[in-house]
Amino acid sequence: MFESAELGHAVTRAEYDKQVPKVRKALLDAQMRLVEQADFPVILLSGGVDGGGRGEVVNLLLEWMDPRYVQVRAMGAPSDEEIARPLMWRFWRALPPKGKTGVFFGSWYTEPIVDRVYGRVRGAELSRRLAEIARFERMLVDEGALVVKVWLHLTKKAQRKRFEKLESSPATAWKVTRQDWKNHERYDRFREVSERSLRETSTAEAPWTVVEATDPHYRNLTVGRTLLDAMVARLERGRRAVPVRAAPPPPPPIDSRNVIEELDLTRSLSDAQYAKKLPLLQARLNELSRDRRFRELSVVFVFEGNDAAGKGGAIRRLTGALDARYYDVVPIAAPTEEERAQPYLWRFWRHVPRRGHVSLFDRSWYGRVLVERVEGLTPEPDWMRAYREIVDFEDSLVRYGVVVVKLWLAISREEQLARFRSREHVSFKRFKIGPEDWRNRKKWSAYERAVCDMVDRTSTDLAPWHLVAANDKRWARVKILQTACDAIEKALAAVE
Amino acid sequence: MFESAELGHAVTRAEYDKQVPKVRKALLDAQMRLVEQADFPVILLSGGVDGGGRGEVVNLLLEWMDPRYVQVRAMGAPSDEEIARPLMWRFWRALPPKGKTGVFFGSWYTEPIVDRVYGRVRGAELSRRLAEIARFERMLVDEGALVVKVWLHLTKKAQRKRFEKLESSPATAWKVTRQDWKNHERYDRFREVSERSLRETSTAEAPWTVVEATDPHYRNLTVGRTLLDAMVARLERGRRAVPVRAAPPPPPPIDSRNVIEELDLTRSLSDAQYAKKLPLLQARLNELSRDRRFRELSVVFVFEGNDAAGKGGAIRRLTGALDARYYDVVPIAAPTEEERAQPYLWRFWRHVPRRGHVSLFDRSWYGRVLVERVEGLTPEPDWMRAYREIVDFEDSLVRYGVVVVKLWLAISREEQLARFRSREHVSFKRFKIGPEDWRNRKKWSAYERAVCDMVDRTSTDLAPWHLVAANDKRWARVKILQTACDAIEKALAAVE
Repeated sequence: MFESAELGHAVTRAEYDKQVPKVRKALLDAQMRLVEQADFPVILLSGGVDGGGRGEVVNLLLEWMDPRYVQVRAMGAPSDEEIARPLMWRFWRALPPKGKTGVFFGSWYTEPIVDRVYGRVRGAELSRRLAEIARFERMLVDEGALVVKVWLHLTKKAQRKRFEKLESSPATAWKVTRQDWKNHERYDRFREVSERSLRETSTAEAPWTVVEATDPHYRNLTVGRTLLDAMVARLERGRRAVPVRAAPPPPPPIDSRNVIEELDLTRSLSDAQYAKKLPLLQARLNELSRDRRFRELSVVFVFEGNDAAGKGGAIRRLTGALDARYYDVVPIAAPTEEERAQPYLWRFWRHVPRRGHVSLFDRSWYGRVLVERVEGLTPEPDWMRAYREIVDFEDSLVRYGVVVVKLWLAISREEQLARFRSREHVSFKRFKIGPEDWRNRKKWSAYERAVCDMVDRTSTDLAPWHLVAANDKRWARVKILQTACDAIEKALAAVE
Repeated sequence: MFESAELGHAVTRAEYDKQVPKVRKALLDAQMRLVEQADFPVILLSGGVDGGGRGEVVNLLLEWMDPRYVQVRAMGAPSDEEIARPLMWRFWRALPPKGKTGVFFGSWYTEPIVDRVYGRVRGAELSRRLAEIARFERMLVDEGALVVKVWLHLTKKAQRKRFEKLESSPATAWKVTRQDWKNHERYDRFREVSERSLRETSTAEAPWTVVEATDPHYRNLTVGRTLLDAMVARLERGRRAVPVRAAPPPPPPIDSRNVIEELDLTRSLSDAQYAKKLPLLQARLNELSRDRRFRELSVVFVFEGNDAAGKGGAIRRLTGALDARYYDVVPIAAPTEEERAQPYLWRFWRHVPRRGHVSLFDRSWYGRVLVERVEGLTPEPDWMRAYREIVDFEDSLVRYGVVVVKLWLAISREEQLARFRSREHVSFKRFKIGPEDWRNRKKWSAYERAVCDMVDRTSTDLAPWHLVAANDKRWARVKILQTACDAIEKALAAVE
């Protein structure tokens, strides 16, 4: 993989001075088209060996391009707000919006590679992480992003010479750290792990370009041209000229039995039972949330369900048992402008709670495979790929100690009708019912099918769906509190 | 100030049970109108003595209202991202958008009061901070926010009894900390400092309501009603029924001399001088930015100027000397939806750099008193009050160690015409010129007057304006680099 980058590539000063103005002009031109169209973001990863000049390249691009539309993301040590959340949170929050170029200096590759070189993780774990990264990048591309990855390569000898040269002048000596020399000693191991990482993540949609970095002229021009060619090709192609490939959704079961139909909606509790059970469960939840070990985890509740199934009331029964300082209710409405300039899951990632905190999502990322699917708001290939992206998302939450509790509140068509009517007749509840609700209701069976597919494809051991019979509000609320307590208790037991 | 809150106010259980449903329903009703109009945010500060039940009140409001539209902000110890920025940054980032209610549990009052009680600041400094807070709240109200401040009061005796009662049960003993008892010993001092703080910040637009907190029923109902009454009154009144009062702008000088006219626009540098000076200044800037003390401060550059004055080119000469990891260029365009749901300065606060970092604003918060004033986009009273708000903003930056370098790049009408024409003729620059530029040009003298007013009202010792003759780009760039270096050098010298 590195053979072509060890040939001693070089460009003369004269040739460099001749080429640079052309590349600059073309880059700036492409950037302006990008800014005006504001149709996709450009994500440039600047990786490679120490001394290869990742920093120089970033500075150079900022000089060549219009820096107003470039966001440099130096991903050094994470801040405490970042440490308190799943690993990928900081990268999501650093993604450039459509129309801008994000230059990552240090990226999602840094930690996996370093961890493996220093023996902190095994090879299999490295591969798992790389596969996760490849899927993440694929999602970015499917969402429209242009992902350009350049790897600046030096031979061991060239690296040593670079360090020695830098150290020979007081003006640049500070650039070489003790860690650099320590890494240099492990050059061969770094090379091996990097090779593997590049190999496993060089995909058709986001390939690596290895650049020999010994001669700065050659390096700069090659990086500039790589970015330029990718931008021009993407601008020419327009959005989604290459469609996402996806299989059609599966047919419904032949005997028309499904998980929703099998739910026993007649289950109920008397007022007396409810009045006895609810406070006990709330007390239990409160106690769990005050457990010392709770500070080590966080909880995400996902509330989905038929219209008028009682999500709001259930949420209030949970929050009533929690300390207001540690939870947030996140109602999901139409995405804002800033959210629309980002990949679909971005607006959910931004509400992922920090350790010790709880987020309650009132509707969620499942909108894509429910309402957006049924109403035809999103093309089929896009919602088909969403299943996998969602599983990946929840996987990265759970791996980090986030308890994900997903609740589907199911009511019958008759019960829904009764509730709609009652809402229309109580002045105070009238705001809760509108023409959209009546429209959705007509598509009952399409929604049911979407729910069943969702359960089949996204109910995992790590983040299972809980289907709650909600015709009786008392039963549903008690059941939800119980589910919440059980899930948290189990997670607490697993701490340490 | 606390007399009325030491009368032993109480409400019977029966009365409480009768009143609560009414208050809840009315609150929820008001909240729904707020959500639907999405016209202003509600900011509730829950302050008061330890043991007064600030936390209980917050939990209660979340139970009474729809928690989806309430954001609880528990302002405990700041995170490291917050510590690295001016004090008020964390409060700005926590402000609720229009249509939502932000409940602050711990607020901008906490630190000033505690610092004074423990003798960390003098009385005069407390007053200065309180005046700053009063202006901040006034700005919030002028921007449309409803600010409700409740102070939960207990006598010393009632506080002791509350602590003892909490400690008597294992279920609540954890709520009383050693710090609570330590503060209790200083009850009289706390009372005195709190009284002063309330007195100095109880304004017509954001008054304090002191609530006796001995009896929880009385306390809860009073807080609920206070919020309710304020919301209803604000909803009835509609937006801005009470206009902001502002004097008219001052007339221009009778002899028509002004700071812009006095600028010598003929100043220039030869190519040779420029080629010699620029790299030296860039090297100096680079060296300054690598100074160890630089990590203790941050720098904000404000670039304003006539259209085509050369802001972009000047910015690139600065960034060319800086390490890409530590700066951000912030181009100011039309506000996004999320930004429009916040006070005017919010979108600038969000880009305030952390320590050791540099933000370069390409156009800035001065838009309000320049283009928005001249084009009539903002009513006169609003841009008139902006001068003071901007001075406050910059003041809170500078006090925290942010170096604010404000640059006005001035060119003559003739030079601008030449540049516009040249832009129209170079394919590559055509995107830089549009009908808007020609329109603005017609209002040359109105802009000039706005610039002079801006300098008169916002050029302060802490954050002075630098007027740069920019007819000659070489002269301007060298001058700007020099100004930047001088300002940073001075700030570095002041570290320790």
